[in-house]
Amino acid sequence: MADKPSIPKGTRDFSPLEMTRRSYIFDTIREIFKLHGFLPIETPAMENLTTLLGKYGDEGDKLVFKVLNSGDFKAKLSREELEGPAARLGNLISGKGLRYDLTVPFARYVVQHRSEIAFPFKRYQIQPVWRADRPQRGRYREFYQCDADVIGSSDLLNEFELIQIIGEVFEALRLSVEVRLNHRKVLAGIAEVIGIPERMTDFTVAVDKLEKVGREGVMDELRQKGIGQGSLSRLDPLLDLEGSTREKLDFLEDFLHTSEIGNEGLAEVRRLFEYEGDHPVGTRLEFDLTLARGLNYYTGSILEVNSQEVSMGSICGGGRYDDLTGIFGLEGVSGVGISFGADRIYDVLQQLDRFPEEGELDTRLLFVNFGETEVRHILPILGRLRKRGIAAELYPEPAKMKKQMNYAHQRGIPFVALVGEQEIREGILTLREMDSGSQEKLTTDELLERLSPAK
Amino acid sequence: MADKPSIPKGTRDFSPLEMTRRSYIFDTIREIFKLHGFLPIETPAMENLTTLLGKYGDEGDKLVFKVLNSGDFKAKLSREELEGPAARLGNLISGKGLRYDLTVPFARYVVQHRSEIAFPFKRYQIQPVWRADRPQRGRYREFYQCDADVIGSSDLLNEFELIQIIGEVFEALRLSVEVRLNHRKVLAGIAEVIGIPERMTDFTVAVDKLEKVGREGVMDELRQKGIGQGSLSRLDPLLDLEGSTREKLDFLEDFLHTSEIGNEGLAEVRRLFEYEGDHPVGTRLEFDLTLARGLNYYTGSILEVNSQEVSMGSICGGGRYDDLTGIFGLEGVSGVGISFGADRIYDVLQQLDRFPEEGELDTRLLFVNFGETEVRHILPILGRLRKRGIAAELYPEPAKMKKQMNYAHQRGIPFVALVGEQEIREGILTLREMDSGSQEKLTTDELLERLSPAK
Repeated sequence: MADKPSIPKGTRDFSPLEMTRRSYIFDTIREIFKLHGFLPIETPAMENLTTLLGKYGDEGDKLVFKVLNSGDFKAKLSREELEGPAARLGNLISGKGLRYDLTVPFARYVVQHRSEIAFPFKRYQIQPVWRADRPQRGRYREFYQCDADVIGSSDLLNEFELIQIIGEVFEALRLSVEVRLNHRKVLAGIAEVIGIPERMTDFTVAVDKLEKVGREGVMDELRQKGIGQGSLSRLDPLLDLEGSTREKLDFLEDFLHTSEIGNEGLAEVRRLFEYEGDHPVGTRLEFDLTLARGLNYYTGSILEVNSQEVSMGSICGGGRYDDLTGIFGLEGVSGVGISFGADRIYDVLQQLDRFPEEGELDTRLLFVNFGETEVRHILPILGRLRKRGIAAELYPEPAKMKKQMNYAHQRGIPFVALVGEQEIREGILTLREMDSGSQEKLTTDELLERLSPAK
Repeated sequence: MADKPSIPKGTRDFSPLEMTRRSYIFDTIREIFKLHGFLPIETPAMENLTTLLGKYGDEGDKLVFKVLNSGDFKAKLSREELEGPAARLGNLISGKGLRYDLTVPFARYVVQHRSEIAFPFKRYQIQPVWRADRPQRGRYREFYQCDADVIGSSDLLNEFELIQIIGEVFEALRLSVEVRLNHRKVLAGIAEVIGIPERMTDFTVAVDKLEKVGREGVMDELRQKGIGQGSLSRLDPLLDLEGSTREKLDFLEDFLHTSEIGNEGLAEVRRLFEYEGDHPVGTRLEFDLTLARGLNYYTGSILEVNSQEVSMGSICGGGRYDDLTGIFGLEGVSGVGISFGADRIYDVLQQLDRFPEEGELDTRLLFVNFGETEVRHILPILGRLRKRGIAAELYPEPAKMKKQMNYAHQRGIPFVALVGEQEIREGILTLREMDSGSQEKLTTDELLERLSPAK
């Protein structure tokens, strides 16, 4: 026998059970996006490299999968081609790559189709992305993102709606989460007040690690990066900041009073917490000064969501970016978005054993196949079941009883119907409940009644 | 301003309207697959080239998109890299390609996961595939396939179930179609009887063109391929074959009586038509001797579906293959499958203007935004609407009335609610129906009643 076939490192097959569970997550998120008036789009898996490169930093550029101009050359490169003049191979490099995230293709979409779009444009997009990362546990080279963004409106109501969506999604998934909120302008204000406005990136990168490396760790890193003692002393009380969100904001108001940008950010944070106070979103919302988020395109509020029950990194994140479409030539369009991490949400639900017990349309009933006569009797009954929305199967060949029952068992089908000569004569069927092994005799009408989805 | 961004040739963006219509097609097909107990799987976009190559013929191999080992090299190839020793570039060719169809990855899946699968395995799969074809009208480099296959059962009941599924799908989509049926063994029997059993491929390729080139055209092609006059004379009456399916089958029974393989095929065709006679599938089923289907892996019954209302090539096709998993080392497993062509079905529905009028969860109501006080009043009403499953939006900023109404108009939102100071005092809102322009004053309870989805 040939070697067992396999798939590329970092990619996955999804089995029927995994698919059902993943669909549960995607459908839940999609339904809530729709209730809020978000519209679906899809973009192609391949984008021009000019669209993709230069948007994710040098490291990101390396992780974009490039695609060859396959149509132009023989599938299996000959030795001569591989060892011949390199220029010939150079021609094979096409200008295409696989999409790395959904945000850059979305920005490209908005610019390309702007004349057809009604702004503000509330879009959602659920598609896979590809990254040539080194595969490791929980990190894949192909994974789905579920994004919702509003582009063309700078009002904070958009941020609040996205927080509401987060609350509704995790409530529907029956998961307790905490939403941590911060603001790039608050961070910029702090950098200004402590006298290092031009060191914003170094500053946020270090502060981001507070929980991990502790206060001294943060100070050490900043010191190594050449931040002076004066700045560090001024920063010091912030790293100790405790208490309620209100207390933290009051402290910051005082701290930031000389920074215009800091005050702007703080006012927005306050307004979001006011909204939330008046209209609770059903989940914990916390101000977290150490939240920075890596992506450089954020310019306003930023947020991250964590499970309160399982330790697992962030399961959703997002923020406002003031000029994403500028890179494609459309300036001054503000956007804000969130992205749900379906794989991590899957892992959390799995660990908590909180997936719903059965899929909506899993097969409910298997008819045992005793042969041609019985099959002809069963086919119309099957049709009636399906018309009622009851997923049902007939074993496709008159195999041994044991084999058929084993199939029902392996598939987790809850009911098996036995229709033999006697049953046909009497106009009934025998229904066996697989779990209990109990059997009852029913007419077709009674069967339909018994298995109808409402039950 | 920069050049307007674009996407690679042969790929497409899908707008919200297109997405809604495509989802209608996919959801309809998926629901019916599920009612028949088919289970979903997904496979990765990238497969190893060893999995993909050699399965689609030489022409197919050329059309597989190959992917570079991007992680290993700088994103933008330097001049030196392009002109340096070719071997360096050769290293960049990874062993991966984008999937070309869903059947080969499915066969690979079955072999790889055979110990976890309950056979017969009824699986469906709805995913995009990629082909480096020359793009032209109606032919794309990225398109979706919707496949259902049963693997591990050779009974004809499986063929019949797939024909039932075809009937149910097109009934649900309100499209009149004709299913044309043939059998590879009948074709093999004819080749045998006319004395050219080893020329089966040439024979079927020529006969496949009967409708296009006419009887003389077929004869010419066969003559050019060196088929002798004796064989052609014996073939002659078959190219004239007219009448009902029953008459055609009777003629063939006589014609094929010396061919064992021909009789086997004919018996299967007869049995399928008997099933259909007893249990009509709700669509026309015809025997078509000229149907051959290009893919070489078919070995039993084959079918194709055409619209009876629009001229558009086949919109669904399939057949039985006796040894697909053999290429991956698992011998003797028979399978049968069908594939719906979502793009062509889309075009047929479009031409006939037969998409449903509105999506299930399109936004029903837009609240006009008059400012902060009104917003705070509206937010809880929005929550109540969404809890009832009514998709509703609040315009995210207090823009000019005209701009907000224009947004509702462009988005096709049927109702707009106006809540100003007076309405808040009186505890009501003004509901405007966009089409007619008529307005009425309602309480929140009356609004919920008015817009509930049941209506």
